[in-house]
Amino acid sequence: MSKLPLSKPALISIDNTDNSFSKIKLTSPTKLPNATGFLWNSTMVMQVNCRGYVNSQFMQPEPAKYSYAPNMEAKSFIQPEHSYFTHHPGRFFYLKDEDSGEIISLPYEPMRIELDKFSFELGNSDITWEIEHSGLKITIKVNLTKDDLVECWFFSVTNEGNTVRNLSIYPYFTVGYMSWMNQSAIYDEGLNAIVATSVTPYQKVEDYFKNEQLKDKTYFLSDTQPTAWHVNQKTFEGEGGLHNPSALQSEKLDNTEARYETPVAVMQFQQQLQPSERKTFQFLFGPAKDEAEIATIKEKYLGHQQRSQARKFYREYTARSKACLTLKSEDSSSDRFGFDNFFNHWLPRQMFYHGDVNRLSTDPQTRNYIQDNMGMAFIDAQVTRQAYIRAISQQSINGAMPEGVLLHESAELKYINQVPHADHGVWLPICLTVYLNETADVSLLDEMVSFVDSTEEQSFSRHIELALDYLINATDHRGLSFIEQGDWCDPMNMVGYQGKGVSAWLSLATSYTLTSWCDLCDEYGITISSQKYDEYRFAAQAINTAVNKHLWHGEWFARGITDEGRVFGTNKDEEGKIFLNPQSWAMLSGASNEQQQADMIAAISRQLSTPQGVMMLAPSYTSMVEDIGRITQKHPGVSENGSVYNHAAIFYIYALYQAGENNLAFDLLSKMVPSLESAETTGQLPVYVPNYYRGAYHQFPKQAGRSSHLFNTGTISWLYRCLVEELCGLKGCASGLQINPKLPTSLKSLSGQRLFRGAVLNFNIEQTLDIIVMEVLLDKQDVTGNVIQNLQSGKDYQLQVKVPVHG
Amino acid sequence: MSKLPLSKPALISIDNTDNSFSKIKLTSPTKLPNATGFLWNSTMVMQVNCRGYVNSQFMQPEPAKYSYAPNMEAKSFIQPEHSYFTHHPGRFFYLKDEDSGEIISLPYEPMRIELDKFSFELGNSDITWEIEHSGLKITIKVNLTKDDLVECWFFSVTNEGNTVRNLSIYPYFTVGYMSWMNQSAIYDEGLNAIVATSVTPYQKVEDYFKNEQLKDKTYFLSDTQPTAWHVNQKTFEGEGGLHNPSALQSEKLDNTEARYETPVAVMQFQQQLQPSERKTFQFLFGPAKDEAEIATIKEKYLGHQQRSQARKFYREYTARSKACLTLKSEDSSSDRFGFDNFFNHWLPRQMFYHGDVNRLSTDPQTRNYIQDNMGMAFIDAQVTRQAYIRAISQQSINGAMPEGVLLHESAELKYINQVPHADHGVWLPICLTVYLNETADVSLLDEMVSFVDSTEEQSFSRHIELALDYLINATDHRGLSFIEQGDWCDPMNMVGYQGKGVSAWLSLATSYTLTSWCDLCDEYGITISSQKYDEYRFAAQAINTAVNKHLWHGEWFARGITDEGRVFGTNKDEEGKIFLNPQSWAMLSGASNEQQQADMIAAISRQLSTPQGVMMLAPSYTSMVEDIGRITQKHPGVSENGSVYNHAAIFYIYALYQAGENNLAFDLLSKMVPSLESAETTGQLPVYVPNYYRGAYHQFPKQAGRSSHLFNTGTISWLYRCLVEELCGLKGCASGLQINPKLPTSLKSLSGQRLFRGAVLNFNIEQTLDIIVMEVLLDKQDVTGNVIQNLQSGKDYQLQVKVPVHG
Repeated sequence: MSKLPLSKPALISIDNTDNSFSKIKLTSPTKLPNATGFLWNSTMVMQVNCRGYVNSQFMQPEPAKYSYAPNMEAKSFIQPEHSYFTHHPGRFFYLKDEDSGEIISLPYEPMRIELDKFSFELGNSDITWEIEHSGLKITIKVNLTKDDLVECWFFSVTNEGNTVRNLSIYPYFTVGYMSWMNQSAIYDEGLNAIVATSVTPYQKVEDYFKNEQLKDKTYFLSDTQPTAWHVNQKTFEGEGGLHNPSALQSEKLDNTEARYETPVAVMQFQQQLQPSERKTFQFLFGPAKDEAEIATIKEKYLGHQQRSQARKFYREYTARSKACLTLKSEDSSSDRFGFDNFFNHWLPRQMFYHGDVNRLSTDPQTRNYIQDNMGMAFIDAQVTRQAYIRAISQQSINGAMPEGVLLHESAELKYINQVPHADHGVWLPICLTVYLNETADVSLLDEMVSFVDSTEEQSFSRHIELALDYLINATDHRGLSFIEQGDWCDPMNMVGYQGKGVSAWLSLATSYTLTSWCDLCDEYGITISSQKYDEYRFAAQAINTAVNKHLWHGEWFARGITDEGRVFGTNKDEEGKIFLNPQSWAMLSGASNEQQQADMIAAISRQLSTPQGVMMLAPSYTSMVEDIGRITQKHPGVSENGSVYNHAAIFYIYALYQAGENNLAFDLLSKMVPSLESAETTGQLPVYVPNYYRGAYHQFPKQAGRSSHLFNTGTISWLYRCLVEELCGLKGCASGLQINPKLPTSLKSLSGQRLFRGAVLNFNIEQTLDIIVMEVLLDKQDVTGNVIQNLQSGKDYQLQVKVPVHG
Repeated sequence: MSKLPLSKPALISIDNTDNSFSKIKLTSPTKLPNATGFLWNSTMVMQVNCRGYVNSQFMQPEPAKYSYAPNMEAKSFIQPEHSYFTHHPGRFFYLKDEDSGEIISLPYEPMRIELDKFSFELGNSDITWEIEHSGLKITIKVNLTKDDLVECWFFSVTNEGNTVRNLSIYPYFTVGYMSWMNQSAIYDEGLNAIVATSVTPYQKVEDYFKNEQLKDKTYFLSDTQPTAWHVNQKTFEGEGGLHNPSALQSEKLDNTEARYETPVAVMQFQQQLQPSERKTFQFLFGPAKDEAEIATIKEKYLGHQQRSQARKFYREYTARSKACLTLKSEDSSSDRFGFDNFFNHWLPRQMFYHGDVNRLSTDPQTRNYIQDNMGMAFIDAQVTRQAYIRAISQQSINGAMPEGVLLHESAELKYINQVPHADHGVWLPICLTVYLNETADVSLLDEMVSFVDSTEEQSFSRHIELALDYLINATDHRGLSFIEQGDWCDPMNMVGYQGKGVSAWLSLATSYTLTSWCDLCDEYGITISSQKYDEYRFAAQAINTAVNKHLWHGEWFARGITDEGRVFGTNKDEEGKIFLNPQSWAMLSGASNEQQQADMIAAISRQLSTPQGVMMLAPSYTSMVEDIGRITQKHPGVSENGSVYNHAAIFYIYALYQAGENNLAFDLLSKMVPSLESAETTGQLPVYVPNYYRGAYHQFPKQAGRSSHLFNTGTISWLYRCLVEELCGLKGCASGLQINPKLPTSLKSLSGQRLFRGAVLNFNIEQTLDIIVMEVLLDKQDVTGNVIQNLQSGKDYQLQVKVPVHG
């Protein structure tokens, strides 16, 4: 058990008594009030807050709610820095001591009574609260199932004292304002369930047929017959308020229905507990189409046996997040367990979530889809293969990649995918590299695939060439890439909306992807005409030259040139002086020479660094700049407007590794990884990398460092890539596994296990002062060069690497 | 002062000490927790709940919010039976006794502390709370201004005790979750205002230009320098919750800003009050584009002088709701003051709201627009004239009237106006009748007006003929009117969506509008070719015959025939056996003979009556009927699915008057009019007719009778028409004022004043046993016949009417 006390008693701790998965424990509901964990399966996701609040969504096929806010709620993504309020959807348990009359609520909301002991524990496949209060011990646990729409709740209460206790236990599960057309709720005796019914509002006849299959019911199933129930939110709450509901004043709830009234699911269980006696309850909560479906869910999941089975299956599902590396790092100055644990468990888990369910979207943005699936190559490369074929099958025959990849027959491009972005062609060659490194599966390149607008089939590599040709053509007279209404940076939408503005980043990314493709062809012997090859190498060079000519401004690269010809992202700007991405990608594309790199790194350190990592730009914009766009209207320090936007930060870290800046790269990577130390600043638990930490560090220092609490981010796969290919330096290549660790000075050694093309390598990487050239031993045999060839699938190896101390 | 105690002390009372406008007073915040009043001007509306909750919207030109719920709120109409919750937008005042430490909230939420005395008073142009608690007397008052976007709040506290009191007063005004792109708030010292700033979320470049003029700021201006302030909702509330905010524990608020955090407007005023001392505050709250606009608002409205001026102008504006009739009714058995007061003040006020600002919509449905403006003919007929010209100018040259009337250059047909309804052509001749009755302005018929799809100009009456021709053509082989995706009943959208289904109501309405037009031509000598005239008379007859042939089912008319040929709305149906509208309109169109009428009335009384009036259909549908549509999916007893839908009920009442059923008509009219007696059932104060009272009386008796709390309804103008033309029988005609009172037996007399074509008639209508034929005296002179001719504009008359007792 590893505990890092931030205050006494330990606020957060890691429990690794279970060897398979280490758990994170928070012991206060108030110190990190927005702390959350998340669970998901292929059809739903739930984000659970330590105080009992929950955000949940499921797919049918579009995201839908079944636990609603009490007013009409706008359908949207989960918002950054989401805020909670008294009537926010949640899963609460009121508990009344029938003898003393005391009422508390668990896990904490909505009464907010101080509890004797509180813990909120996030596991891989479940979330648990342990609470002690007035001689009672309460356990609340929730897990999902592998593929059904059901939250499985477990509640137990134990009498730890010496006297008989008379209790009433009242689960209070939010249903909320479901629909202005029709909403009601009843207790269904046959099912022993509360069933809330609604009709999704619509007005057009055609929507009736679309909506026919919607799961407009919300059920609450119990394994125990309730003493009484209440399903009418308003009358349950009464004048007392949610912090002291009127209905709890009576001995028994009065079985009130909801008829075009806001539903809630409340049951009462009167229970006498002898000393040491324990009583357990099982509850199922979720959406359903009809009573028959609820009956099926009941059959399948209610009961001791069923529960164990379901937990086992769900554990097996989440266990599929195991990735290709486990490691143990060591240095002299700090306990690295948290760091290792995050990389061994939580990061692969988050990566698997992205790759397996594509952020629970039916039309993921193409750039997200390709990058998320790059991460999947470290877990299950077959998934990556299928995803890349799917992505390229939605390419236009003119070479343009789509805005988003449609994953469902009825899916449509929505929201941001209706805005034209210019960067979707750059990602495949870059991300394909990881797939080939992990698998050496060059057969993918020969797959014949059609187009979204043509049944003509072309090889996968021809598709890539078409994408590259399209990018080369989408440049102006200076040879710079048009930005249209955005590049990687979605809200940079007014730099080039008139058709003239160009993007420094996109030009450099185009150069980098051209080079990546040529390098891949070299490395893996992919068939390419020498004319094309030369053309791509030449174009990459030409772009680098153009960017240097038009966009280098003294110490760093500008971000672009607007429709009106204004260069921006330079020292001349009051706000948005420097952007991170052009520097990172100039390093990747080879556009910057050594002096330039040194200048850029210095400028970034001076202007963009914060305790949580590097900001995406600075200073953050504080008012609209009409030739830049929507990014300048976002709140300073939030999202793309100068937060520590981790996706941009990881590009920079990756570029630093390419440049051999191992110490700086590791420093920034460590800042990005959520930790026990940073939790009180970020407000989140170390179970995922958020899409951003609040920036505008010099402008709004008080808020800087806060987590967005959004766990969807393109950061993940790059972070894992940095870990495997750069920090550990265990990167695949055509002939085998290339060894090139990039340990920072501070890290004495790294050991662990690398799964690679079916082989298992138990490795140990050590920095030693007594050598000047790396030494590699495989099963105690010297390896010549730094590539291990002829690894056998199914075999175990011992890999010993000694590296000279990095300067 | 008239008080009708429902319990002691008087729960609700009417205060008529001010002669110009009687006020309604509620003395409990808990007995009618959803009781509201509403204020509006041409650019905004606010609905104020007695406990402090507020719904408010303004126009720019689409409806917009400036006081938001704490989560992202869906933009929608105010919903029926809107429900409130702790963090619902509101305007609250916390009040702390610095000596005792006691904290209360005013007017009631969010602390819900029982107050010594509480009253919530709705005036014509302001809303006031009077509260007494612990020796303090508090007055809270709000009014709007004539045409600016500002809520004017007044707060006073008086020390009624004998000791010095040390208080802190904290206005807490909800700003709420404004935007995920950008939201913040600060205290602006120069303005002495809290200013919250946001950016309305959008993604497409074109929306940036649309949004540029949006008022994305919310201000809170004070006339008094605050001791301290707090604009961060989350930290203000803290762990204490809104019922006990943490920030109030300190002596002073700590001046916390909101930076991408949910804003709130809280100021603290520390105040010592000597015995009998009174302290007043003035606050302004609303949306603005920028600080300059806030400064202008401050200049214009902050200060004693400015306040008086603004209140005066706003009083003048609401006083424009005065309509053509004031009356005093008398019967032996009951106090009729509430009834008279409603007709003299509140009903014209609601009618003026509809007619002057068109429900604050930019695209009112054509049927609503025409009917709402029919009511306006009783207040300011010029407005009706302009509205009818505007409506007809949006007709297609093929005769089809539009779904909605666009009132703003950037307005679009939205929501329900994108669904094709078949009834929009029927309303103009019907409603035009009232305009002509009030004005005899036949010149309107000669106005030359173009079309939405043609610049060709045609006379107003030719436009009407085109609409009628279109209706006549939109009939099937049986001569019945196609219903398309709905008629007057919007959600009856699947009877005829395949192009075959027909509507009994629409057929009868077509017949009635044809007859109405011919009658109008007769009465007012409107030019019409004899061929057209005969054609219309013939068509009306033919329709009546067809409806009788295909839709009469024993005791009442069916509602229609579906695409598949199924007749529905008959005794054969389990649900939706009988619909009100076909019966009412068969009576109006002349389709029913005397026996049929008697049968229909009996069937309606048996199946549709409730204490709040007649339901629109019964039994209410409890599940989807696929050949009827969306109406069957609404909750039973709600809206069109069998509520006491007042718009339908008033059609029936109007038809009963045409049939001479004066007693029944008056009985139902009295049930519709909200009263002190019905308030505890309906849950609303008698200040407006709601669009419905909950029906499904036999299916869900517990909820039956509840008001929708929606004050937008087509009922209003018809109700007033019934009052003027039918009950009082003071109806205009070509040659003057026709006298034909339709007093119920219970009503002894009616007296009052009728404004008519510039003349003022002080009338007295009396039922007497001693006559068998009505006697009419004008200025004590016998009038021959029942039409008063040659009334002079500007002159006062005394009108004496004696009517035989009605049997």
